[in-house]
Amino acid sequence: MDNDRIATLDRSLPFYTWYARSPHTVRAGQPGVVDLLFGNPHDMPIPAYVEAIRRHSEPKDPSWYVYMLDHGPATETVARDLSAHTGLAWRPEDVAMTTGGWGAIAIAMRMLTEPGDEVIYYDPPWFFYDILVRGAEAVPVVLALDPPRFSPDPQRLADAITPRTRAVMINTPHNPSGRILDATELETIAEVLRDASARIGRPIYLLSDEAYRLIVLDGQRASSPAEHYDHTLILYSYGKQLLAPGQRIGYLAISPRIPDPEPLRKAATLTRFVNGFGFPNNVLQRALPDFSQLCIDVEAIKRRRDRLIPVLAERGLEPTVPEGTFYIMARSPDPDDEAFVARMAAEDLYVLPGTTVAMPGWFRISLTATDAMVDAAAERFARTTAPTTGR
Amino acid sequence: MDNDRIATLDRSLPFYTWYARSPHTVRAGQPGVVDLLFGNPHDMPIPAYVEAIRRHSEPKDPSWYVYMLDHGPATETVARDLSAHTGLAWRPEDVAMTTGGWGAIAIAMRMLTEPGDEVIYYDPPWFFYDILVRGAEAVPVVLALDPPRFSPDPQRLADAITPRTRAVMINTPHNPSGRILDATELETIAEVLRDASARIGRPIYLLSDEAYRLIVLDGQRASSPAEHYDHTLILYSYGKQLLAPGQRIGYLAISPRIPDPEPLRKAATLTRFVNGFGFPNNVLQRALPDFSQLCIDVEAIKRRRDRLIPVLAERGLEPTVPEGTFYIMARSPDPDDEAFVARMAAEDLYVLPGTTVAMPGWFRISLTATDAMVDAAAERFARTTAPTTGR
Repeated sequence: MDNDRIATLDRSLPFYTWYARSPHTVRAGQPGVVDLLFGNPHDMPIPAYVEAIRRHSEPKDPSWYVYMLDHGPATETVARDLSAHTGLAWRPEDVAMTTGGWGAIAIAMRMLTEPGDEVIYYDPPWFFYDILVRGAEAVPVVLALDPPRFSPDPQRLADAITPRTRAVMINTPHNPSGRILDATELETIAEVLRDASARIGRPIYLLSDEAYRLIVLDGQRASSPAEHYDHTLILYSYGKQLLAPGQRIGYLAISPRIPDPEPLRKAATLTRFVNGFGFPNNVLQRALPDFSQLCIDVEAIKRRRDRLIPVLAERGLEPTVPEGTFYIMARSPDPDDEAFVARMAAEDLYVLPGTTVAMPGWFRISLTATDAMVDAAAERFARTTAPTTGR
Repeated sequence: MDNDRIATLDRSLPFYTWYARSPHTVRAGQPGVVDLLFGNPHDMPIPAYVEAIRRHSEPKDPSWYVYMLDHGPATETVARDLSAHTGLAWRPEDVAMTTGGWGAIAIAMRMLTEPGDEVIYYDPPWFFYDILVRGAEAVPVVLALDPPRFSPDPQRLADAITPRTRAVMINTPHNPSGRILDATELETIAEVLRDASARIGRPIYLLSDEAYRLIVLDGQRASSPAEHYDHTLILYSYGKQLLAPGQRIGYLAISPRIPDPEPLRKAATLTRFVNGFGFPNNVLQRALPDFSQLCIDVEAIKRRRDRLIPVLAERGLEPTVPEGTFYIMARSPDPDDEAFVARMAAEDLYVLPGTTVAMPGWFRISLTATDAMVDAAAERFARTTAPTTGR
């Protein structure tokens, strides 16, 4: 990795670059700090999750901490849960366990691409899509989702596909907009991809980042793109539903509708070897059947959303109303969102500048803060005035 | 990853290919099975290690399971331990925490090479060196260590270096021979690399795989190559000293004698991002200060070694006498080591065929088996006769 490559990868991380130079984060966790920055936990972990980790950490036999690739009970649990959610017949062999959703995306990129192949993803993106595409020597092709609907434009997608296109990444429920793509939108994407695959003469894979599948509000259900398009790989992280992102477990699941899964299965194993043992720790794999259905309190997320939205809307900040995820996007009162975020941080209120997710002029709020933090934020935002006078 | 690439990577895994088609391993763990196959645990885990995992799994505050990159107390512990061992002044910033030694090797390959660069490693190798070199699009250049000394030949090394050589991988104590390179051998390698670096005009990195650093017998000490050569990266796994390979934690440590470490530090972070979050789980990082000095009972390894060696030697099987690690290599009584191993397996005695580590005609024994298993193996080997009559 020469200096040019380091610089290229570094430039693909506007979030990390911002974060590394943000001195205010040193006060995170201090009393009085209102931290709406990340989807990190601010309440104690789910007791049943802690109990599952405790129980499966305790060695039951000499080989308890043995090397573990894909653990049968873990892949069986995933196949069962996915079958229940999608109505498709997933098999344990379709499931590759990974070190979180991040690991799943990383192996998907290497599995599907050769150097120079193109991968389409959407802005606003998850922080690390770009570096994972580039890290696999593939070429990112970035399309925009426009507010307020953040819906993929089918014509733009069709126009962006070339003979080098290998995969399209979709994230629903979508971080940071909170949109859940409906059946019509998913079917439209599927039609574009079917047509384009026929045109270029090989299947374009749909990579479905479903990390927020269970974080759904107002009784919504997040359909999986796999229900609409055969050549789909589901990429999943348990880090969101448990709010335990430091305990790395997730998976890549190959749709049972893909006619010849064997090369993909083999590639999933080889890429996990190549990437430095991309299998989750054995304790987490052993514990998975006990925590796969646990989820943080989405009613609390909804309550905090409904506390903040009216305040933001009244100030003219055009907040998104998330259907899923635990994020709200809102217009920055200052067009320079980093300056606004820095001013808020100086008052111990942490939010994320939109520039870090390709939405300059906006900021992001995470509703994983405590109720008390959200109340304090609502009061602070109520004092926020229009851009011109706010400077 | 097209079918050619899948086939190339697959071919680079003779061990995994053998293992995947070995039906006998299904009986592993059954009563009566004598399992000398891998460095996997057969006795209960170290109680203080289990206690450390238990203690640090228990959430002490809401952010207990938060996202974690390099954890300060973990990198400080590694820097302190390395300084004590090598006499060099390692700083926490020199340490990149990884998902075991495997993760450390994977990031080293991507950090140091561009496609087409060459990496030298030695046969007999660890199972996954080759796929990790190729996975980074680098070119493996393989040199042989010859029995009985398994000492790198300095002239062969000098001759193998080209302007594309970026790194040389050394493993001491050496799996599977058990050799510990002495100060003279390490200094000779360092001289070759210093000369060659000057000749090609850029530093050749020495990658020091020290996974068995603490598994030393007869009061030996395993010097680190970092004590002899400035441009050294140490690659470490806690999986051997704890015999807990399914709990993934290790590190890559950049020698404090490297004059400009900043690009390497940056590359270590970027490659961990690219490889799918190559940082260890937070519970393991939190617990590291409590387990970094714990080690399995090396006296038991020595006792088992000394039980088996005379039996193997008497049968003319020319066993290695390991100074470190928990492995013995011995000649297969049948030149076809896979056939010999299959016959032993049919009698519920599991050993590893030498073909899987580029030593056809040999087999490997792991001394992590129980004393009872080793006794049973000694009795069985005592009945083993010479190749011609043994068929």
